[in-house]
Amino acid sequence: MTSSAYAHADLYAEVQHFYARQMQLLDARKLEGYADTFTEDAEFGHTPGREPARTRAGILRDLHEVHKRFDEDPQQRRHVFTMVDIDPDADGTIRSTCYALVLTTRPGSGPELVRNCVVHDVLVREEGELRNRSRHVEHD
Amino acid sequence: MTSSAYAHADLYAEVQHFYARQMQLLDARKLEGYADTFTEDAEFGHTPGREPARTRAGILRDLHEVHKRFDEDPQQRRHVFTMVDIDPDADGTIRSTCYALVLTTRPGSGPELVRNCVVHDVLVREEGELRNRSRHVEHD
Amino acid sequence: MTSSAYAHADLYAEVQHFYARQMQLLDARKLEGYADTFTEDAEFGHTPGREPARTRAGILRDLHEVHKRFDEDPQQRRHVFTMVDIDPDADGTIRSTCYALVLTTRPGSGPELVRNCVVHDVLVREEGELRNRSRHVEHD
Repeated sequence: MTSSAYAHADLYAEVQHFYARQMQLLDARKLEGYADTFTEDAEFGHTPGREPARTRAGILRDLHEVHKRFDEDPQQRRHVFTMVDIDPDADGTIRSTCYALVLTTRPGSGPELVRNCVVHDVLVREEGELRNRSRHVEHD
Repeated sequence: MTSSAYAHADLYAEVQHFYARQMQLLDARKLEGYADTFTEDAEFGHTPGREPARTRAGILRDLHEVHKRFDEDPQQRRHVFTMVDIDPDADGTIRSTCYALVLTTRPGSGPELVRNCVVHDVLVREEGELRNRSRHVEHD
Repeated sequence: MTSSAYAHADLYAEVQHFYARQMQLLDARKLEGYADTFTEDAEFGHTPGREPARTRAGILRDLHEVHKRFDEDPQQRRHVFTMVDIDPDADGTIRSTCYALVLTTRPGSGPELVRNCVVHDVLVREEGELRNRSRHVEHD
């Protein structure tokens, strides 16, 4: 195996780990922490037909807006990212395409599978940390 | 950690990445692309009680046959491979056992969990790329 | 990327692989094998409100107790660990937090999503192998 294969494998684990931390923040409703995993100028389109949120501040506003509906319909959501396919560019940008299962559990009920999605990310490295420059989510 | 532990970890990420690309091809119904992830002489048994498909050409024929039913019952299927357990042989062959969740979404409906499977793979390396020499799927 | 980043990535793959083997043992009802993935003095709390099992022998007794109910209600259970977030200490101890989906399939039925959990593990290395010093499971 070449040294480039080694580097690729390390990056693969790093992206998986990034997703784990990122989505655990969202599911814990640490919305500021989740917004911080995006770059300052990022674009985040999570719902087809809805204008993507732009800039980290805009993403945070949008997250608060979207999460309002859970005030009246309390539930524990879980985002499970799997089948991660990464494609790193020579300039360090990483295109990543993965599946996201959205699950939820309401008080007194069993878990429910809400949605299957395909996530299209562009990841960049800032001060050693991965961040989303963009995320676009397709719903099945 | 020994250098063999390092190599093992790299292989682990490589197998996960291989599965992500392989199953995204199938779910996008790129059947030729999916068949190309098998060796020329591969065997693929995806349904208990049904004779396994043999050779890459035979696997492709079988895939077209199996996918016909989706013409009349359109749906977006997703294969989620998880809990990957690999066991590499000294000769470079890799036995891999993992879980596969099969999910589907029909137009206008929510997602559905169709089946839990255990996948038994034998993977080999051809010109630097992993390929399935065999795949046998058990259904729960 | 620093050499510490490399080591982190290797550990990440190792933990994922450990979970795959560990939970495949449990789902195959190899209860002794599963109990052996815990340290001799481990603590395992799998059900909120139930006293955690303590020591490997105590964990094994508890596993046999818990699995009795499946004698009268046969089913193939699957534990899918995803979104693994690890946090290694300087002393080699690893805190790991991940999601667990519990799925089951009863004879003649389709698969069912039983529960979403968050797993809080403390992993240690014994004779080169990872083991759970503790596991505490929260249910959504």
